[in-house]
Amino acid sequence: MIRIFVTGGTFDKTYDEIHGRLAFADTHLPEMLKLGRSRVNVSIRTLMMIDSLDMTPADRDLIVRNCAQCAESRIVITHGTDTMVDTAAALARGVPEKTIVLTGAMIPYAFGSSDGLFNLGSALSLVQVLPAGVYVAMNGQHFPWDGVRKNRETGVFEPIR
Amino acid sequence: MIRIFVTGGTFDKTYDEIHGRLAFADTHLPEMLKLGRSRVNVSIRTLMMIDSLDMTPADRDLIVRNCAQCAESRIVITHGTDTMVDTAAALARGVPEKTIVLTGAMIPYAFGSSDGLFNLGSALSLVQVLPAGVYVAMNGQHFPWDGVRKNRETGVFEPIR
Amino acid sequence: MIRIFVTGGTFDKTYDEIHGRLAFADTHLPEMLKLGRSRVNVSIRTLMMIDSLDMTPADRDLIVRNCAQCAESRIVITHGTDTMVDTAAALARGVPEKTIVLTGAMIPYAFGSSDGLFNLGSALSLVQVLPAGVYVAMNGQHFPWDGVRKNRETGVFEPIR
Amino acid sequence: MIRIFVTGGTFDKTYDEIHGRLAFADTHLPEMLKLGRSRVNVSIRTLMMIDSLDMTPADRDLIVRNCAQCAESRIVITHGTDTMVDTAAALARGVPEKTIVLTGAMIPYAFGSSDGLFNLGSALSLVQVLPAGVYVAMNGQHFPWDGVRKNRETGVFEPIR
Repeated sequence: MIRIFVTGGTFDKTYDEIHGRLAFADTHLPEMLKLGRSRVNVSIRTLMMIDSLDMTPADRDLIVRNCAQCAESRIVITHGTDTMVDTAAALARGVPEKTIVLTGAMIPYAFGSSDGLFNLGSALSLVQVLPAGVYVAMNGQHFPWDGVRKNRETGVFEPIR
Repeated sequence: MIRIFVTGGTFDKTYDEIHGRLAFADTHLPEMLKLGRSRVNVSIRTLMMIDSLDMTPADRDLIVRNCAQCAESRIVITHGTDTMVDTAAALARGVPEKTIVLTGAMIPYAFGSSDGLFNLGSALSLVQVLPAGVYVAMNGQHFPWDGVRKNRETGVFEPIR
Repeated sequence: MIRIFVTGGTFDKTYDEIHGRLAFADTHLPEMLKLGRSRVNVSIRTLMMIDSLDMTPADRDLIVRNCAQCAESRIVITHGTDTMVDTAAALARGVPEKTIVLTGAMIPYAFGSSDGLFNLGSALSLVQVLPAGVYVAMNGQHFPWDGVRKNRETGVFEPIR
Repeated sequence: MIRIFVTGGTFDKTYDEIHGRLAFADTHLPEMLKLGRSRVNVSIRTLMMIDSLDMTPADRDLIVRNCAQCAESRIVITHGTDTMVDTAAALARGVPEKTIVLTGAMIPYAFGSSDGLFNLGSALSLVQVLPAGVYVAMNGQHFPWDGVRKNRETGVFEPIR
């Protein structure tokens, strides 16, 4: 059994057609897993539904606590890309004995042309085979939590030495 | 560098609008990798573009030979689901020292609602981390070549003892 | 109130993932109208769900009879493109006093990249404004039933003198 | 020959993946017409690419002037929904002798689930058959410019008197 924690991010942004702006409603995770015809045994829980630029230390504590306390030892977290590495660092300190893979998207899933489905397939596979540790999985690549940064100008996750 | 060999299958079926039937044209792989914003260094080669029910021993030999002779030691193969396990067995005999992941789709990518993008993310990640061997990656799961069969009635890949 | 009769055709073809072939299941009309955020008052009835190449004189009689007997005087028919003009001719003989617009698609709606939604918007608008008569609406154009033919080689509906 | 003037609006909103927000880039009109397999002879010109809430009297004058001066007597305008009726009123005063149909979308076309393709099929058909006048075509319905208002709470265009 794999645990999936949803925190929001571009992954789950949707279009509010009354006000003509981006917004968060329910997560698209179950729909995406159905579309991907996933047969992986997962348990999904939405912890928050926010832009990761708005994530506070208290939010991050909540994520760490949930990862530490849940029964599962293999966890996928969907997360906004801007502060994904910060949350990964907090998890590395707080939950050293589990395999945790953070993933996200550059384009909302609701926009049809999303990288989210690709990244979800990636994260869900990696979490099953990687040893204990905290990882970021984006763009078909994966990095240890302390070996990656997001290049804000290109939107790409890059390895750091 | 990862090698991707394309062999056709549901993954790449398209709709022939003049004749109103399914057909094969060019592979969608490059478009899918772009959509997934993949940053993985890949080299794609189309070996054939056929329904896997029409695959002959000669076709299978061609796949084995290409996997054995290419420079890369990590290979993803897109393949029709019906005889994916047969090709996996041929590869296990013929190419024992490389990591090879076969994947496919139940719904053509061109049909919007495809599991192909999810499976591609999965296969491309697994091939980077699994030890030498031949694997089938479908539905978010992966199996050793001799530990899986396709249930023709449900369309699902199942573990066998 | 506008009546919509569904007869199948490419419009409603879907992908049978167990057998890997095209098939007909339920019509996508209600989903398409919802997607188009249609506010038109319609009543939908599926008369048959077939490829128009398989349409018999008895099938065509059934369509004519339904158009003649229904309460509405404005009718949209979704239809395979190959024999759409034949059905239009039968309707022109059998139902002279109503406005009937036949439409279809070159690509199944289920394939994401469909012309069906565009054609449906077109047909549903035309049926509200055209005088009594039988029309074919395809590719943003519309023709009287006896002023059009389908070019089988290009897949395009062309005016005939 | 039909003239299409593009002014922006939800229709053409896209997702800026570097900054994670909605933005305007190039119009999707040519791609949408291709998807709809439109065979209508059109000439497209982008006049502006803005949210209709930001449209100034000078912008509106520019639209009126272009409609008055272009050679075509049948014109479709893609427009944000919030002030579509205001522009329609300006056109009714300034260009009384042409058939002008304004249309838009509640959901960006780039979001896959768009009503834009449906509305475009609708507008492009109506402009070919309606007599001179200014009309709003939304949701499969159409209204004379002085017979409609947008309900801001529901997002729906409603007839007035």
